[in-house]
Amino acid sequence: MLAWVDGLQATGLSLNDRGLTYGDGLFETIAVRNAEPRLLARHLARLEGGCRRLAIPLDSDEVAREIRAFSAVLGHGVAKLIVTRGEGQRGYAAPRPARPVRILQGSAAAAYPAGHTQEGVALFPCRTRLAEQPALAGLKHLNRLEQVLARNEWQGEEVEGLMRDCSGRVIEGVYSNLFLVRDEVLMTADLSRCGVAGVMRAELLHQAEGLGWPVQVCDIAYDELLRADEVFLCNSQYGIWPVRALDGHHWPVGPLTRKLQAIVRDRVDG
Amino acid sequence: MLAWVDGLQATGLSLNDRGLTYGDGLFETIAVRNAEPRLLARHLARLEGGCRRLAIPLDSDEVAREIRAFSAVLGHGVAKLIVTRGEGQRGYAAPRPARPVRILQGSAAAAYPAGHTQEGVALFPCRTRLAEQPALAGLKHLNRLEQVLARNEWQGEEVEGLMRDCSGRVIEGVYSNLFLVRDEVLMTADLSRCGVAGVMRAELLHQAEGLGWPVQVCDIAYDELLRADEVFLCNSQYGIWPVRALDGHHWPVGPLTRKLQAIVRDRVDG
Repeated sequence: MLAWVDGLQATGLSLNDRGLTYGDGLFETIAVRNAEPRLLARHLARLEGGCRRLAIPLDSDEVAREIRAFSAVLGHGVAKLIVTRGEGQRGYAAPRPARPVRILQGSAAAAYPAGHTQEGVALFPCRTRLAEQPALAGLKHLNRLEQVLARNEWQGEEVEGLMRDCSGRVIEGVYSNLFLVRDEVLMTADLSRCGVAGVMRAELLHQAEGLGWPVQVCDIAYDELLRADEVFLCNSQYGIWPVRALDGHHWPVGPLTRKLQAIVRDRVDG
Repeated sequence: MLAWVDGLQATGLSLNDRGLTYGDGLFETIAVRNAEPRLLARHLARLEGGCRRLAIPLDSDEVAREIRAFSAVLGHGVAKLIVTRGEGQRGYAAPRPARPVRILQGSAAAAYPAGHTQEGVALFPCRTRLAEQPALAGLKHLNRLEQVLARNEWQGEEVEGLMRDCSGRVIEGVYSNLFLVRDEVLMTADLSRCGVAGVMRAELLHQAEGLGWPVQVCDIAYDELLRADEVFLCNSQYGIWPVRALDGHHWPVGPLTRKLQAIVRDRVDG
């Protein structure tokens, strides 16, 4: 497998890396097509924002160059980038200066069934709730035990799990963000308490704004979701999947979902 | 540095280890004195409980043997054990079967100033709050970004930081559990929503019960802490440190604190 640590081919990481010991880092999962990283500016913007909030002193120009070089070698697939605060001694205090570590790993693009995009997917309502932690909300950090617990709740045909926060608000999928359409208004969860602010979510919000569509980023109750006209998931690997079923409710694939699918298709597949 | 991975001398870990990618694992920090791991039964009990809750299939007899063998080589110091769910492919779903990885690292015992034990330490009131997540509460898991953020809030003379939950309840120190004494009742926070259930905390609760002391494991408001007669911290490395100052309040070292210090001294130093 193609893997670089700080720009050099590697297979392992130091046992003292704080990414392992504390989950002290961030990651990005980048679709690579025709040797180009897709949505790179959005991935970099999220990563830089995360590093700022965690006070990880990353050289983002160097990271951008490295992702481009890695994508050129990978050609087609998925480039996963992990940035950690680097090695540290025992104890939570950050090393000063910290020397962040960059890990890039390549893998084949996932072979999702075409039906996921065409007919949509069923959602599993996870019991595991997202804790409310404004200090980490929105970040794609390495503390992902909630997602591990949630993903292991179901073995059935459901492709994704729905995650709610501890107050029951609808937040996101285990691997994706969630949108709904109600009376032609596009809605997605406010992520100031928990959740991951996905790059495809940002892209869709940007596209909807450009089209002049009404958009609400707000709190969403579970019964509002169940009463929605359209529901869909998004992430940077597959673009948009309609949701066709959840908890005994069923939705057809709606017109706004189809329009957005057409618009973002080239962001992932082009 | 002495370090074993699955019982063999090693310096690195696979880039696909889920300890790195998701913080999908647990750890224990064990005091080693005279080639013996201290409070081993309590460390193992917590680890086993954590593995059960995270569905990590650990062979705990093997771990116990390994810790003893490692301690015999280390002689004196700190043995840090990390157990991860092992390697996985991309995605949160646990590999089936999972092959957990055991990492043991040795380091010198920390040289704490004697004054910390004798006169006590000052506490810094951290702004970073602990999120309420019952599914992970009590576990010493690898998702420790809250502690990283909290520890980096202060640079001053305070030796520890006080952590409260998002509702403002007093929970613990960044590296320790916290007790207070009020009208000769020993009190420590209920950890069913957040916090780490420390092995020294468990030992102290056990000792207090044996002595017939009244003990309350309960919710503690910040102003209850400030009005306490005695306050102290505990962990498995140093035993008990009195708290002498927090947020403009000052405490003398109290009689129950001294009694418990005498009782647990041989658990760490003997």
